[in-house]
Amino acid sequence: MKTQLQGKVVCVALNDKQQLEQMQATFEQAPYKALPTEPVLYFKPHNTWNEFNAPIAWQEEGLVVGASLALIIGKTCCRVSAEQALDYVDGCAILHDFSLPEASYYRPDIKGKCLDGSATIGEMASVSDLGELSAQTITVSVNDTDVVDFPLARLERSAEQLVEKVSRIMTLEKGDILAIGFAGDRVEIKQGDTVTSRVGQVLSLKDSVGEAK
Amino acid sequence: MKTQLQGKVVCVALNDKQQLEQMQATFEQAPYKALPTEPVLYFKPHNTWNEFNAPIAWQEEGLVVGASLALIIGKTCCRVSAEQALDYVDGCAILHDFSLPEASYYRPDIKGKCLDGSATIGEMASVSDLGELSAQTITVSVNDTDVVDFPLARLERSAEQLVEKVSRIMTLEKGDILAIGFAGDRVEIKQGDTVTSRVGQVLSLKDSVGEAK
Repeated sequence: MKTQLQGKVVCVALNDKQQLEQMQATFEQAPYKALPTEPVLYFKPHNTWNEFNAPIAWQEEGLVVGASLALIIGKTCCRVSAEQALDYVDGCAILHDFSLPEASYYRPDIKGKCLDGSATIGEMASVSDLGELSAQTITVSVNDTDVVDFPLARLERSAEQLVEKVSRIMTLEKGDILAIGFAGDRVEIKQGDTVTSRVGQVLSLKDSVGEAK
Repeated sequence: MKTQLQGKVVCVALNDKQQLEQMQATFEQAPYKALPTEPVLYFKPHNTWNEFNAPIAWQEEGLVVGASLALIIGKTCCRVSAEQALDYVDGCAILHDFSLPEASYYRPDIKGKCLDGSATIGEMASVSDLGELSAQTITVSVNDTDVVDFPLARLERSAEQLVEKVSRIMTLEKGDILAIGFAGDRVEIKQGDTVTSRVGQVLSLKDSVGEAK
């Protein structure tokens, strides 16, 4: 079933346990002095929505991609518990977030994350078709070579915990999308590359990198 | 004319010269080591849009408000020059951004800025009705006492410069809103307060702070 990008597209950053372990020393320095205690969120606004999977515009500064499992919210979701979380989810899909390589974690990287047409989403499946979320793995391949395996067991916060946390920060509405986390290492890509991500046999998403615009 | 919140609502933070001067010493320390060189942007997503000026929900952590002149984009605006900027603007209005008091500048304050129903906008006037933007002042009053005067001459980057800069970061679309800057000192408010902002005789916006939800 075709997934629509609409409402809010909320992405969770820094949700890979392995990345957080690697960054622990950095985060313990000033100004943070500790790992994040709340989910670190960013938005993919309307201009980033690439509904028809047009080629991703190449950027002079380079381009990286992350793949996340995305939950499609099915009804108004405000301050729900982790136990109830999946009752508010219509289904899931893979989301690709193309962005500029990140230079620093110290300022919200609006420029890097808000490239026109830089968010795509695959077809939706029901959570029950997918099975236990934490048992799934997202695999990203570039030009048919697998480059990243991200087992969702590596998520610092699970899908259900995130719905609880995020729905206390802001109401999620029907059609909103919550991308629950990316492997810490985003994948560097080049002009002409094809990026394919999949979760088992159920979910997949394919994009190609085009010319600069 | 009624203004619609739609598409993207992009706000510019840290655009008050006086605040930047006061913060210079802080920003020159690690990790920034310099004042921002690009506009610092944040979004007010769909759940924050308070179209009918319902009372603002009180928050246990407290509540602050900022008022900004908001430009309403009139047509697709991508990589335009400052000289052309106002050709892409249909009109302007006052935007109120209610948020949690800010604890730190080091992490994107998504939680503080994304409270449900925390963005309101006043009626739109044409830029020509308002006159030279940099000659205008936004005055915020709480319970009929003026508390902040923010002359737009104090903007570090002007409306026109921001349209140029932001339209290079992301395409602005018809109906998108760009709030060009807030006085550095946000105004602390209490339950039951009424906040009124105005620009001369042309623009005004009134909100009240209600109960916790």
